[in-house]
Amino acid sequence: MRTTTGWQSLDPTTNALTRVTIERRDLRPDDIAVRIDYCGVCHSDLHRIHGMLGEKDLVPGHEATGVVVAVGPAVTGFAVGEPVAIGTIVDSCGECAMCSVGQENYCYNRPTTTYGGTDRIDGTPTKGAYSREYVLREKFALHLPAGLDPAAASPLLCAGVSVWEPMRAAGVGPGSRMAVAGLGGLGHLAVKIAAALGAEVTVLSRSANKEQDAKALGATQLLVTTDETQVAAARGSFDFILDTISADHELTPLIGMLGLDGTLCVLGNPLLAGPKLWELGAGRKKITSSGTGGLRQTVEMLEFCAVHGITADVEILPSSEVETALDRLAAGNVHYRFVLDMSDLDASV
Amino acid sequence: MRTTTGWQSLDPTTNALTRVTIERRDLRPDDIAVRIDYCGVCHSDLHRIHGMLGEKDLVPGHEATGVVVAVGPAVTGFAVGEPVAIGTIVDSCGECAMCSVGQENYCYNRPTTTYGGTDRIDGTPTKGAYSREYVLREKFALHLPAGLDPAAASPLLCAGVSVWEPMRAAGVGPGSRMAVAGLGGLGHLAVKIAAALGAEVTVLSRSANKEQDAKALGATQLLVTTDETQVAAARGSFDFILDTISADHELTPLIGMLGLDGTLCVLGNPLLAGPKLWELGAGRKKITSSGTGGLRQTVEMLEFCAVHGITADVEILPSSEVETALDRLAAGNVHYRFVLDMSDLDASV
Repeated sequence: MRTTTGWQSLDPTTNALTRVTIERRDLRPDDIAVRIDYCGVCHSDLHRIHGMLGEKDLVPGHEATGVVVAVGPAVTGFAVGEPVAIGTIVDSCGECAMCSVGQENYCYNRPTTTYGGTDRIDGTPTKGAYSREYVLREKFALHLPAGLDPAAASPLLCAGVSVWEPMRAAGVGPGSRMAVAGLGGLGHLAVKIAAALGAEVTVLSRSANKEQDAKALGATQLLVTTDETQVAAARGSFDFILDTISADHELTPLIGMLGLDGTLCVLGNPLLAGPKLWELGAGRKKITSSGTGGLRQTVEMLEFCAVHGITADVEILPSSEVETALDRLAAGNVHYRFVLDMSDLDASV
Repeated sequence: MRTTTGWQSLDPTTNALTRVTIERRDLRPDDIAVRIDYCGVCHSDLHRIHGMLGEKDLVPGHEATGVVVAVGPAVTGFAVGEPVAIGTIVDSCGECAMCSVGQENYCYNRPTTTYGGTDRIDGTPTKGAYSREYVLREKFALHLPAGLDPAAASPLLCAGVSVWEPMRAAGVGPGSRMAVAGLGGLGHLAVKIAAALGAEVTVLSRSANKEQDAKALGATQLLVTTDETQVAAARGSFDFILDTISADHELTPLIGMLGLDGTLCVLGNPLLAGPKLWELGAGRKKITSSGTGGLRQTVEMLEFCAVHGITADVEILPSSEVETALDRLAAGNVHYRFVLDMSDLDASV
């Protein structure tokens, strides 16, 4: 067994995590060990710490970048010292229809999630990347392209691919009339990526204050969703709306802004109930959702971001300040993603 | 004023309609008058007679075929004696984004429905095609292609185009893995048209008894939705499912049978609530609905059906037996569409 240090939730009623020693498995032939330098703080970490999926004693974290520190004897794709990234899943069945098309995130036999999952070989619970070292199959590790800052790139591993896949599935590109609802961790990356894909991007926000930020990220305009006149004038305006709002909210105004055969993809709050179906019928509108990304598209997304110089806008905190990051994320006080610097875990306490 | 005879609902608690004299407007320059020979009995007629949209004193009927009997002085596309068809809408604004792309059914300024609507010029309520004569703008009348039996073709004007448009929007064709849920008026036409488009069609039904019928209509197989083993084995099997079931039903089993990026189009019961969105997220599945058809696609559908010899399987009743038709439709006792023969309205009572 290898040991490392990380941050564990031992009480679902608080954002205070506890520094603990974590065991990592000895390397299997196709495993690599990664020194984690940075890990993004994802909104789903917050939900899961507070018991959304009924889990306990989580070590969260699934947006990690770092460096390879050891490789198993059968590893061919990574060498010690190489930059590497870890996303939301670390294994899958490899045989089902979803795995065979590179959508391991939808594995019919449940993907093994980076934390809160169960290792497919030894049955132990997976513990996430709010820690200094992680061990995983090389197949599920990702090369971090040169030129991407490892701290600012870490949120690409969940937030980035979560917006990338539905945009690609919808064919977002030059000529697309796209809107992004909500301008947080997911939303700000969606704006950057959509603009780089060539789409005309509108940000939908309750607040007109975000206009300058939205334009700086690549949007052509901001539409204030609390302004009924603006919403009415935007009827039928968008081919694709990516809804990244995590709070409860009405879908009807968004549906109204879709054009014929347009699609609303709800990412931020998948616990929302769908609308009455007749709301979609007037214009053959579609509603969908999506869940992180598969390996193939994660690689494509990282390469695309490297070419276009896209990373998240981050605020970096030492990992010991994880509670502050979670508190401020819960309060919506973040521009646009917290990233934990794990190097403080090297010091003894 | 012109007068004709038709069947009106004067009591929303019963399927018994009353034979009444109906006034039709004198022809405007771009109007034609149509002797209605046949009119299909649509499930929506039943709902609306019983007050679903809060209307009263309806003369239903929006699946009509007949012959032109008079034309206004500006009419250029129709001549007296020509076969003609009338569908679900008889006017629209002609100027909005939907009208300008031939989707008058989604007119932003409300299409004028064939019955239960309001004439855009004189403000009178529109009265439908359960009657011997109808007057409408030539723009909204359709040429009935040679070779289509006028009785069996009448259901194409609502049921036919209602399944045609979402199939075309979804790109149904050779290689498509398509399913049709429910085998009634809409469903049986969906199977015929999808098979003619080149798709591999599965019928989803609660009853194994319909297998022979399904295959006779062009399906390759029938899947029994009450058989959990069959449903589980069909996980991810379909690119597109057209749900024509009018009764309340669960969408979850249908969603489970969609493959990656698959689409469920709910036509039969648009009052259903959509699923929780996370149900769609595992596989980026889409849910949509659709409402009848626009002029352009109605013309395309009629031409396609003429080329492929597709009409509805109908049971023809004299219009005086409309109550029987509605009763049996409500009881699901129809294979697959009732069509009323309006010629009995010529006799005095």
